[in-house]
Amino acid sequence: MSFFAGLLSTVFERRYRSPLEPDLEGRSMPELCAAVLGRSGEVSGAATARHILDRYARMEGDERLGFFKLLAEEMGLDAEAVRRTLAAFETEPSSETYRAFSAAVEPKRQELARRLNQVPGATAQLVQMRRDLLDALPMHPDLGPVDQDLRHLFSSWFNRGFLVLLPINWESPAEVLEKIIAYEAVHAIDSWEDLRRRVQPSDRRCFAYFHPAMPNEPLIFVEVALTKGVPGSVQALLSDARDELAAEDADTAVFYSISNCQAGLAGISFGNSLIKQVVADLSRDLPGLETFVTLSPIPGLMDWMQEVGRVMSDDPEQQRQCAAHYLLQAKRANGSPRDPVARFHLGNGALVHDVHASADVSPNGMAQSGGVMVNYLYDRARIAQNHEGYAGAYEVAASASVQALAAAADRASDQGHRDGEPSL
Amino acid sequence: MSFFAGLLSTVFERRYRSPLEPDLEGRSMPELCAAVLGRSGEVSGAATARHILDRYARMEGDERLGFFKLLAEEMGLDAEAVRRTLAAFETEPSSETYRAFSAAVEPKRQELARRLNQVPGATAQLVQMRRDLLDALPMHPDLGPVDQDLRHLFSSWFNRGFLVLLPINWESPAEVLEKIIAYEAVHAIDSWEDLRRRVQPSDRRCFAYFHPAMPNEPLIFVEVALTKGVPGSVQALLSDARDELAAEDADTAVFYSISNCQAGLAGISFGNSLIKQVVADLSRDLPGLETFVTLSPIPGLMDWMQEVGRVMSDDPEQQRQCAAHYLLQAKRANGSPRDPVARFHLGNGALVHDVHASADVSPNGMAQSGGVMVNYLYDRARIAQNHEGYAGAYEVAASASVQALAAAADRASDQGHRDGEPSL
Amino acid sequence: MSFFAGLLSTVFERRYRSPLEPDLEGRSMPELCAAVLGRSGEVSGAATARHILDRYARMEGDERLGFFKLLAEEMGLDAEAVRRTLAAFETEPSSETYRAFSAAVEPKRQELARRLNQVPGATAQLVQMRRDLLDALPMHPDLGPVDQDLRHLFSSWFNRGFLVLLPINWESPAEVLEKIIAYEAVHAIDSWEDLRRRVQPSDRRCFAYFHPAMPNEPLIFVEVALTKGVPGSVQALLSDARDELAAEDADTAVFYSISNCQAGLAGISFGNSLIKQVVADLSRDLPGLETFVTLSPIPGLMDWMQEVGRVMSDDPEQQRQCAAHYLLQAKRANGSPRDPVARFHLGNGALVHDVHASADVSPNGMAQSGGVMVNYLYDRARIAQNHEGYAGAYEVAASASVQALAAAADRASDQGHRDGEPSL
Amino acid sequence: MSFFAGLLSTVFERRYRSPLEPDLEGRSMPELCAAVLGRSGEVSGAATARHILDRYARMEGDERLGFFKLLAEEMGLDAEAVRRTLAAFETEPSSETYRAFSAAVEPKRQELARRLNQVPGATAQLVQMRRDLLDALPMHPDLGPVDQDLRHLFSSWFNRGFLVLLPINWESPAEVLEKIIAYEAVHAIDSWEDLRRRVQPSDRRCFAYFHPAMPNEPLIFVEVALTKGVPGSVQALLSDARDELAAEDADTAVFYSISNCQAGLAGISFGNSLIKQVVADLSRDLPGLETFVTLSPIPGLMDWMQEVGRVMSDDPEQQRQCAAHYLLQAKRANGSPRDPVARFHLGNGALVHDVHASADVSPNGMAQSGGVMVNYLYDRARIAQNHEGYAGAYEVAASASVQALAAAADRASDQGHRDGEPSL
Repeated sequence: MSFFAGLLSTVFERRYRSPLEPDLEGRSMPELCAAVLGRSGEVSGAATARHILDRYARMEGDERLGFFKLLAEEMGLDAEAVRRTLAAFETEPSSETYRAFSAAVEPKRQELARRLNQVPGATAQLVQMRRDLLDALPMHPDLGPVDQDLRHLFSSWFNRGFLVLLPINWESPAEVLEKIIAYEAVHAIDSWEDLRRRVQPSDRRCFAYFHPAMPNEPLIFVEVALTKGVPGSVQALLSDARDELAAEDADTAVFYSISNCQAGLAGISFGNSLIKQVVADLSRDLPGLETFVTLSPIPGLMDWMQEVGRVMSDDPEQQRQCAAHYLLQAKRANGSPRDPVARFHLGNGALVHDVHASADVSPNGMAQSGGVMVNYLYDRARIAQNHEGYAGAYEVAASASVQALAAAADRASDQGHRDGEPSL
Repeated sequence: MSFFAGLLSTVFERRYRSPLEPDLEGRSMPELCAAVLGRSGEVSGAATARHILDRYARMEGDERLGFFKLLAEEMGLDAEAVRRTLAAFETEPSSETYRAFSAAVEPKRQELARRLNQVPGATAQLVQMRRDLLDALPMHPDLGPVDQDLRHLFSSWFNRGFLVLLPINWESPAEVLEKIIAYEAVHAIDSWEDLRRRVQPSDRRCFAYFHPAMPNEPLIFVEVALTKGVPGSVQALLSDARDELAAEDADTAVFYSISNCQAGLAGISFGNSLIKQVVADLSRDLPGLETFVTLSPIPGLMDWMQEVGRVMSDDPEQQRQCAAHYLLQAKRANGSPRDPVARFHLGNGALVHDVHASADVSPNGMAQSGGVMVNYLYDRARIAQNHEGYAGAYEVAASASVQALAAAADRASDQGHRDGEPSL
Repeated sequence: MSFFAGLLSTVFERRYRSPLEPDLEGRSMPELCAAVLGRSGEVSGAATARHILDRYARMEGDERLGFFKLLAEEMGLDAEAVRRTLAAFETEPSSETYRAFSAAVEPKRQELARRLNQVPGATAQLVQMRRDLLDALPMHPDLGPVDQDLRHLFSSWFNRGFLVLLPINWESPAEVLEKIIAYEAVHAIDSWEDLRRRVQPSDRRCFAYFHPAMPNEPLIFVEVALTKGVPGSVQALLSDARDELAAEDADTAVFYSISNCQAGLAGISFGNSLIKQVVADLSRDLPGLETFVTLSPIPGLMDWMQEVGRVMSDDPEQQRQCAAHYLLQAKRANGSPRDPVARFHLGNGALVHDVHASADVSPNGMAQSGGVMVNYLYDRARIAQNHEGYAGAYEVAASASVQALAAAADRASDQGHRDGEPSL
Repeated sequence: MSFFAGLLSTVFERRYRSPLEPDLEGRSMPELCAAVLGRSGEVSGAATARHILDRYARMEGDERLGFFKLLAEEMGLDAEAVRRTLAAFETEPSSETYRAFSAAVEPKRQELARRLNQVPGATAQLVQMRRDLLDALPMHPDLGPVDQDLRHLFSSWFNRGFLVLLPINWESPAEVLEKIIAYEAVHAIDSWEDLRRRVQPSDRRCFAYFHPAMPNEPLIFVEVALTKGVPGSVQALLSDARDELAAEDADTAVFYSISNCQAGLAGISFGNSLIKQVVADLSRDLPGLETFVTLSPIPGLMDWMQEVGRVMSDDPEQQRQCAAHYLLQAKRANGSPRDPVARFHLGNGALVHDVHASADVSPNGMAQSGGVMVNYLYDRARIAQNHEGYAGAYEVAASASVQALAAAADRASDQGHRDGEPSL
């Protein structure tokens, strides 16, 4: 096997069969966990780890909850040890006292997770385990610290430096593509033919982040359309009838869908980095691209209108004014924009570039925003400045035209006030 | 680019050029670190991280020490915060209070390392940074906690589940092979021709662990000879004059050299896992292999003899008795064997199988052990049992013949006592 | 780019853009062909070759026929030159006279095809060109020599030594998998889900031959089921309801479908080699496999029965007798078996192992053989002997049970004769 | 095994073990060849083919010659069959008569070679076989037709469309790199360190053509230096002391060495295509490159001077005049340039750009050209035109400065004539 082919095949197919399979079936979960954590863990640990993960995979309901309770109650923090080692470190700061402190603040369940991870495929199973845990959390808030520990560990394991950006296209393995179909969260993919339309044409791109230990599992992916000019509706973008554009002829890259794939990695953010890297890669490969823009939903628009007692006008211009006002001026208690998608892109340094009526007339699109969509623009010359303004004071950068639309909405609202209409 | 070729090339060659390079040259290291750790770190962090690593790489002496002091003093533990958040968690255990505690116990320098790691090549640079730190540690013990934090982080990053075992052979890239030449620590490799003799013949194998983020850097490697019967000298093993054996005809695999490559990963152990996985892989590929054994140095033998006031006899049999006695009975204060190589293999579950005089007549071999070497046997049927005995009470498993040699040494020693000779 | 990743990507994605694009649009096809064949062909040939292939791809009907006529009439054999160079070689045999003869017997269109093949993707286009030619051949038999020349060239290009056997599975690229769906000729694949059932389960395998210059185009593929015992119906084999078998537990590999993919490679046989290599590979990977057998259609059974004036009985046993008789005794004029699938497998050294009624109750299966199917057994110990008997005298090897079935059919037929029934 | 990793590993490591190994040792070479060519060849052919190649590999001297005679005499042309089938085809042109003719004109040894090629590794062995044959040819000219047949077959197998261009660098497998060391024909590579200087620095490139069936064997390779300006000596180019240039800063690519690797592929030309493809690839990756030029030896200069009775002056300017005169005006009988390297580059469309004295002061450089070297310039805008002029009438394109040097040499020569000196 050649060197790099070997690297690949080892990454992808490694199968570990320990020659030392003790009698594991008869032992309880606490015993098994103790075995993996004990000194013997170094020698016979892989078989035991494999067994724990297999047994976990067969658990359901209460049994699974019992395992989580074991992690929470038997492998939790020893507050006394923390205090003792901290005092010792303060008295005499040294490698030894610091090491003792570091050991004391880390519950055993973290080391357990690290040791379970030594067997092939374990990483994906541990991510699934956190997904199960997150499902259980609302009913069992006492499991919160277990979740925090897994999250902390995953933030090291899934450090951005270990992620790999890959294009997803019609040459990708079927087992990866079927996950793209399953995980698409914004504009559902109905079938393999529908998928093909998203990844095969010359004016379509898709990119995903992968982790080497989970090579068949995309972590997050973004779908991109290459266009001439900034598009104003997702129907046009996804239409079968459109003329395919040669990639070289495009001047605009439109990010029209971003989907997180792994519920078990909630709270570990990849999206900002993904967009920046895709912008960098596309710029290098297609020098004709001048504009990088999203075509994004406005998920909170209709809810907000209901809250403020407004109904969506039938007039496209008024719809746009209304959306612009919402995006620029509707805030949460801490002063940040109310719309979650807006917070994501504005936080990345994008600006509100344009709003379009009848841009997503699917049932979902109508329900959430009356069909209005928004373009966020990633303008390299302004990203740092936009980001600073947003990070400091939640300033919302917007194009002059969107500002004008919002201003018109304000005037209409004032007018409405004077006329006795409910406030925008 | 095809899917997997893409994965490879991304892993190996990813180059990240941020479009947002602020003016970094003019800023101080503390400012740069603060920037990477700040909220802006999410957006412009990669360029800053790249810049910090580049600037670090150019540092020497006091300047580098200054950087370590920054990590030690400005980014260290906030004991007060630990106490406060621990108390809050004890008062009201919840996700929030636990998260606050978790954040408080982790010094900022850990998050700094994670953020620096987002740029390509950073992992290898951070490993090098710890190597530099370890060099400085004896003179600057106050840097110990910084070292502990890096070690803690690396134990997550270099978790065994993320390592990849690869064969090293004549098809391997030259840039990997030259590192094998450089890192061989037991029996030096003189030249490319010498290397070829270790990796190309049908009765030679070499395996190394790699991490996907450092694909050109072996972490640890082992050299294996396939033989008929257990060999008694390294000269015979490495001789150019030997007849090459077809791999299928071998019944014994001899591990004759294990070398750690990364000083910056000191304390993070891979050796036990490496040997077990190589045994498993060789067993699968070459079913004719029945015996897995080392041909190991006895690095502490001559030092110990000097300490106990003995001189090495010229008689091969007495040399062997002496070595057997040392391996089985010379102990450290905690009861573990005095010889470090013995500790490694016995801890893995091996047993002392045989000792050979004139087995390594190189200057180094003569100096450390009078030319005597030892075979440790990895007998699958007994590994677990050996390991238990060792892990529990430092019991040293040995073959009957080695036990007999040690017993003969004891008798000689007793005789010596009666004769007024210094004790063995 | 790493070495092997580079090899891959070059094979798969090489794009050649000549810096020397002369004005090609204005030139006629004969001029372009002359240019590629001329001395300048060495320098500017690639662009011209690219242009010829592109122009051919846009041709239809008469225009395409015109191109074929050009190949047939303007680039054909110069009989006079053959005679002249042959005489010269006979008079004075030498490298020079032989080279002249070799040049004379090869029509220019062969060198044209070789030169066209220098551009990426050309091989697949030339295979397509022969497919078009084969379509035209019945109406234009004068194009026969052109077809012979392409076939001759392809038999060198697609020499078995250049083919690559690859497993097809759920990790294969979608663009390869969709071709498996399209090319399956025996048991149609309805959908991606149906495909998944053929390639993903642990007891299913699929293998295809590829040529490195057409990496996305399977040439021929075989579908294999791993079973316990020899199956008697394709319904059971393809049923969704069956219990999946662990590959290690199978004792039998059933070749239930072989499909040629490239009509343009008609007459260049890969099937025998494919089966032998798959048998060898499966034997190595799954030592538990003892029996290699097909589950094959009997495409000529019903036609033959009609010819001999028989109708298919409703009795399964009589159906089987009838099929056995047909397979063992129905012959063509040259003495070879009448059934084409039988000729293929018997010629490979297989034997007729068993026949099953109601084994393929699909409309197609009922139409061609009344639902009867046959197992051909590849018994390694007897392949050479079977093959010799078949190759020498068209002896048909069969199991005792099939011979008994055929004998029973003969007796029934004799009985029928006596009873005034039509002959079997 | 993933799809593409599988393609790789199959290409590189395929091992074919036939389950049908008849008793081959006892059979004569003519019998074995007949067996491979016979009908059984389809079934048991691979083992027999493997055996023939292995037996050939062990042959020496007369035995090998005997095998060549077998190919020449027993598997040669049947002139009578050619005449008969040609007449039949002329009488009634059809697919059948043409196929018979095609079969008759191809000696059996061609089909033998194709069948031998079905086993892994056979292609390289057949290339080696032709190398042996070429060695024997001068003493045995009657083997010429065998050579012609192999050459004809290889021109199909090694069709440019099947070749793969790969970069050779420090990541290449050692087994490929050692062949670069061995095959370098222009400026010898002394050691691995010397090799490293040719392939690792940022201003060095090396590219080779490979065939997928011989993945470890480069067919031809070119070494390139990236420079600022056109260099005038190979010493400067290869000097360890030079400052390494960032590839992005180079404006010139200098082809300073081209080496054919496979003597068995003599007469099948790759060089022109290699240079063009490397120019295209470098242009795409390094847009700053403006000039593509060689630094070439003038291998025939000193021989020619001796023939015309001149001695090389010590004056650099006169040396240059002399070289320019030779390159532009010394001709062979057919009017083509006398210098073989000149013919290669001028035939590719290059022009004589400059000549340099003391440009290769190695013993070999002094012996062949008194140290003078030449730059041939590949000017894309003029390649087609240069080529046309050369291909039509052996016109030698040259820069104005080289023309001036040649003119000065002519004047000196005229002067010399008048002064009674020997003619230039």
